[in-house]
Amino acid sequence: MRLRVEVRLKPGHFDPEGDVTAKMLRDLGFPVTMVKTGKVYIVDVESDDREEALRLAEEMCRKLLANPVKDDYSLEVLPT
Amino acid sequence: MRLRVEVRLKPGHFDPEGDVTAKMLRDLGFPVTMVKTGKVYIVDVESDDREEALRLAEEMCRKLLANPVKDDYSLEVLPT
Repeated sequence: MRLRVEVRLKPGHFDPEGDVTAKMLRDLGFPVTMVKTGKVYIVDVESDDREEALRLAEEMCRKLLANPVKDDYSLEVLPT
Repeated sequence: MRLRVEVRLKPGHFDPEGDVTAKMLRDLGFPVTMVKTGKVYIVDVESDDREEALRLAEEMCRKLLANPVKDDYSLEVLPT
Protein backbone atom coordinates (compact mmCIF):
# COMPACT_ATOMS: atom_id res chain seq x y z
CA MET A 1 0.00 0.00 0.00
CA ARG A 2 1.31 3.44 -0.92
CA LEU A 3 1.11 6.27 1.60
CA ARG A 4 1.71 9.97 1.41
CA VAL A 5 3.09 11.57 4.56
CA GLU A 6 3.36 15.34 4.72
CA VAL A 7 5.35 16.94 7.53
CA ARG A 8 5.08 20.67 8.16
CA LEU A 9 6.14 23.01 10.93
CA LYS A 10 3.45 23.76 13.48
CA PRO A 11 1.93 27.24 13.16
CA GLY A 12 4.05 29.86 14.88
CA HIS A 13 7.33 28.02 14.44
CA PHE A 14 10.10 29.90 12.71
CA ASP A 15 10.70 28.67 9.13
CA PRO A 16 13.99 30.22 7.95
CA GLU A 17 13.99 28.22 4.70
CA GLY A 18 10.52 29.55 3.90
CA ASP A 19 11.58 33.09 4.72
CA VAL A 20 14.64 32.88 2.46
CA THR A 21 12.56 31.36 -0.35
CA ALA A 22 10.00 34.20 -0.01
CA LYS A 23 12.78 36.78 -0.19
CA MET A 24 14.30 35.17 -3.28
CA LEU A 25 10.90 35.02 -5.00
CA ARG A 26 10.28 38.71 -4.19
CA ASP A 27 13.76 39.57 -5.52
CA LEU A 28 12.74 37.83 -8.75
CA GLY A 29 9.69 40.11 -8.92
CA PHE A 30 6.96 37.78 -7.63
CA PRO A 31 4.29 39.36 -5.38
CA VAL A 32 4.83 36.84 -2.59
CA THR A 33 3.94 37.65 1.03
CA MET A 34 4.74 34.35 2.75
CA VAL A 35 6.32 30.95 2.11
CA LYS A 36 6.18 27.96 4.44
CA THR A 37 8.07 24.77 3.65
CA GLY A 38 7.33 21.15 4.33
CA LYS A 39 8.45 17.66 3.47
CA VAL A 40 6.67 14.87 1.64
CA TYR A 41 7.40 11.16 1.95
CA ILE A 42 5.85 8.64 -0.43
CA VAL A 43 6.10 5.37 1.48
CA ASP A 44 5.33 1.85 0.23
CA VAL A 45 4.44 -0.53 3.07
CA GLU A 46 3.88 -4.27 2.82
CA SER A 47 0.24 -4.26 3.90
CA ASP A 48 -3.04 -4.69 2.05
CA ASP A 49 -5.02 -3.25 4.93
CA ARG A 50 -5.75 0.45 4.73
CA GLU A 51 -6.24 0.92 8.47
CA GLU A 52 -3.07 -0.99 9.33
CA ALA A 53 -1.08 1.02 6.78
CA LEU A 54 -2.30 4.30 8.28
CA ARG A 55 -1.53 3.05 11.79
CA LEU A 56 2.03 2.15 10.67
CA ALA A 57 2.46 5.57 9.05
CA GLU A 58 1.30 7.27 12.24
CA GLU A 59 3.91 5.28 14.18
CA MET A 60 6.63 6.14 11.59
CA CYS A 61 5.85 9.82 12.10
CA ARG A 62 6.07 9.53 15.87
CA LYS A 63 9.30 7.51 15.76
CA LEU A 64 11.21 9.06 12.86
CA LEU A 65 9.60 11.29 10.26
CA ALA A 66 8.19 14.11 12.40
CA ASN A 67 9.48 15.97 15.42
CA PRO A 68 6.59 16.01 17.91
CA VAL A 69 7.76 19.30 19.41
CA LYS A 70 7.73 21.32 16.22
CA ASP A 71 6.01 19.36 13.44
CA ASP A 72 2.46 18.57 12.36
CA TYR A 73 1.84 15.77 9.89
CA SER A 74 -0.93 14.49 7.67
CA LEU A 75 -1.37 11.01 6.21
CA GLU A 76 -3.13 9.77 3.12
CA VAL A 77 -3.43 6.41 1.35
CA LEU A 78 -2.65 6.84 -2.34
CA PRO A 79 -4.34 4.90 -5.12
CA THR A 80 -1.98 2.32 -6.61
CA MET B 1 -4.31 33.64 -2.77
CA ARG B 2 -2.66 30.64 -1.13
CA LEU B 3 -0.94 28.03 -3.27
CA ARG B 4 0.50 24.64 -2.59
CA VAL B 5 3.53 23.68 -4.67
CA GLU B 6 4.86 20.14 -4.45
CA VAL B 7 8.26 19.34 -5.96
CA ARG B 8 9.34 15.73 -6.39
CA LEU B 9 12.13 13.97 -8.23
CA LYS B 10 11.19 12.68 -11.66
CA PRO B 11 10.69 8.91 -11.84
CA GLY B 12 13.99 7.08 -12.23
CA HIS B 13 16.08 9.73 -10.50
CA PHE B 14 18.17 8.56 -7.58
CA ASP B 15 16.75 9.67 -4.20
CA PRO B 16 19.44 9.01 -1.58
CA GLU B 17 17.44 10.71 1.19
CA GLY B 18 14.49 8.45 0.44
CA ASP B 19 16.73 5.38 0.41
CA VAL B 20 18.26 6.27 3.79
CA THR B 21 14.81 6.97 5.26
CA ALA B 22 13.57 3.59 3.99
CA LYS B 23 16.56 1.84 5.57
CA MET B 24 16.02 3.61 8.91
CA LEU B 25 12.33 2.69 8.91
CA ARG B 26 13.18 -0.95 8.16
CA ASP B 27 15.77 -0.92 10.95
CA LEU B 28 12.98 0.26 13.26
CA GLY B 29 10.94 -2.78 12.20
CA PHE B 30 8.56 -1.20 9.68
CA PRO B 31 7.70 -3.30 6.57
CA VAL B 32 8.75 -0.56 4.17
CA THR B 33 9.82 -1.34 0.59
CA MET B 34 10.38 2.16 -0.81
CA VAL B 35 10.49 5.82 0.23
CA LYS B 36 10.59 8.81 -2.10
CA THR B 37 10.97 12.32 -0.76
CA GLY B 38 9.68 15.66 -1.93
CA LYS B 39 9.29 19.24 -0.89
CA VAL B 40 6.17 21.31 -0.25
CA TYR B 41 5.91 25.09 -0.45
CA ILE B 42 2.83 26.91 0.81
CA VAL B 43 3.01 30.26 -0.99
CA ASP B 44 0.83 33.33 -0.44
CA VAL B 45 0.69 35.56 -3.53
CA GLU B 46 -0.93 38.97 -3.81
CA SER B 47 -3.53 38.06 -6.40
CA ASP B 48 -7.27 37.44 -6.26
CA ASP B 49 -7.26 35.72 -9.60
CA ARG B 50 -6.96 31.95 -9.51
CA GLU B 51 -5.58 31.61 -13.02
CA GLU B 52 -3.01 34.38 -12.51
CA ALA B 53 -1.92 32.81 -9.20
CA LEU B 54 -1.38 29.44 -10.89
CA ARG B 55 0.50 31.08 -13.74
CA LEU B 56 2.78 32.83 -11.21
CA ALA B 57 3.35 29.57 -9.35
CA GLU B 58 4.27 27.83 -12.60
CA GLU B 59 6.82 30.58 -13.28
CA MET B 60 8.20 30.33 -9.71
CA CYS B 61 8.78 26.62 -10.27
CA ARG B 62 10.57 27.22 -13.54
CA LYS B 63 12.72 30.02 -12.13
CA LEU B 64 13.48 28.87 -8.59
CA LEU B 65 11.55 26.11 -6.85
CA ALA B 66 12.09 23.18 -9.20
CA ASN B 67 15.04 21.95 -11.20
CA PRO B 68 13.70 21.28 -14.71
CA VAL B 69 16.28 18.55 -15.31
CA LYS B 70 15.37 16.38 -12.35
CA ASP B 71 12.12 17.61 -10.77
CA ASP B 72 8.41 17.31 -11.45
CA TYR B 73 6.00 19.66 -9.70
CA SER B 74 2.30 19.98 -9.05
CA LEU B 75 0.31 23.12 -8.19
CA GLU B 76 -2.91 23.62 -6.28
CA VAL B 77 -4.86 26.63 -5.09
CA LEU B 78 -5.74 26.19 -1.41
CA PRO B 79 -8.96 27.40 0.17
CA THR B 80 -8.34 30.45 2.37
